[in-house]
Amino acid sequence: MIYELYYWPGIQGRGEYVRLALEEGGAEYVDTALIPDEDGGGVKALMRFLESDDVAHPPFAPPFLRAGRRLIGQTPNILLFLGARLGLAPKAETGRLWVHQLQLTIADFIVEIHDTHHPIGGSLYYSDQEPEAKRRTKEFLAERLPKFAGYFERVIERNPDGRQWLAGSKLTYADLSLAQVVAGLKYAFPDSTRKALRANPRVAHLHDAVFARPRITRYMRSDRRLEFNNDDLFRRYKGLPS
Amino acid sequence: MIYELYYWPGIQGRGEYVRLALEEGGAEYVDTALIPDEDGGGVKALMRFLESDDVAHPPFAPPFLRAGRRLIGQTPNILLFLGARLGLAPKAETGRLWVHQLQLTIADFIVEIHDTHHPIGGSLYYSDQEPEAKRRTKEFLAERLPKFAGYFERVIERNPDGRQWLAGSKLTYADLSLAQVVAGLKYAFPDSTRKALRANPRVAHLHDAVFARPRITRYMRSDRRLEFNNDDLFRRYKGLPS
Repeated sequence: MIYELYYWPGIQGRGEYVRLALEEGGAEYVDTALIPDEDGGGVKALMRFLESDDVAHPPFAPPFLRAGRRLIGQTPNILLFLGARLGLAPKAETGRLWVHQLQLTIADFIVEIHDTHHPIGGSLYYSDQEPEAKRRTKEFLAERLPKFAGYFERVIERNPDGRQWLAGSKLTYADLSLAQVVAGLKYAFPDSTRKALRANPRVAHLHDAVFARPRITRYMRSDRRLEFNNDDLFRRYKGLPS
Repeated sequence: MIYELYYWPGIQGRGEYVRLALEEGGAEYVDTALIPDEDGGGVKALMRFLESDDVAHPPFAPPFLRAGRRLIGQTPNILLFLGARLGLAPKAETGRLWVHQLQLTIADFIVEIHDTHHPIGGSLYYSDQEPEAKRRTKEFLAERLPKFAGYFERVIERNPDGRQWLAGSKLTYADLSLAQVVAGLKYAFPDSTRKALRANPRVAHLHDAVFARPRITRYMRSDRRLEFNNDDLFRRYKGLPS
């Protein structure tokens, strides 16, 4: 099975959570965002699925994954599908649902991170909502970042099968996603993130352990991994608290 | 199996999506939000799971469901679990993932609806963020409401197994959730919702069909169904566009 990933070119965004699972799982996949429009990739390839009338299960937005005849959208749903196939989730139902629950909490966290720079709406530029972004970022860094970081710290601490990962004794897709969120937060809000990681050392350790894995290291060094940038989910603005 | 639902008393909130599935599925369940604190329900029962050190799989926030020895959090995850057991989701994997994908899109919609009245943060009162709420609501009603409504209209239209529900020939938990969102939008933004439903008649019909089902009708007439109110997810403020 060669998977096809569809996502906006030029950013990590939500596509990155899928990429990390594909890379760590050793999957064969085509990242259509890396292929030019004229060669059948890019935005054009993606819009076909969003706009064409003959797609039975249209996604609301990227990322989405093509797996044979299936087209699967919504990041946590893609990871639920891949987790079972790539050995990145427990097989038994209780463990599978627990990892998915953690992923959905990470997804909530990501929405709140995104909305620090777009509190009024995604259809407006950042520069059109800078005062509101300043207020929301202040709230986020004071209230939400410590709450989410503390939650994941507790989850790792209570994991009866090992004190390294969120769930069970083996790495899951939720660990990959949490590590990516931490990396993004370090880029966007270096000061507050340093403080949060000092207070939550297990989260800091999970981040380091994920990015030290051979397949993830190889991916990070490849030209498939894009740099963080300010068109992306995680942004660093001089006008916002860090 | 007698399920136990844990949620904040006094509001429908995210608990309502679970309640509708339990009711339509004919499940036996205890809604702990309806039981006073002194009788072992209410906020006290809920906080025990959020705060106690001995919960192996702590939820980040309500709602969560106790099913025997399992404790399951995150609304779409609870519905994924219940859907299989209550006959509210397809059995085959492709259909199951598709319904879950739709539920996750409904969950995204719900976050955006909530944030119309809390664009800066949930830890502040509405009155502390009214100018921002006005701007965000305007954006939401102009851009997002038509986009989401049009998306679900297309999904119903393209459903090859019937033109009534989102997925397949039978009602699923995603239909129940979409109907609840429409009911909430009618309460919160009556003018814009009327317009959106006129433009998307299949969504309007789905709402009516769900609330005409015998078990849902019985639930709506019971004292288990709370009224919409302004401490809840869907709010109607004079200061905001409708």
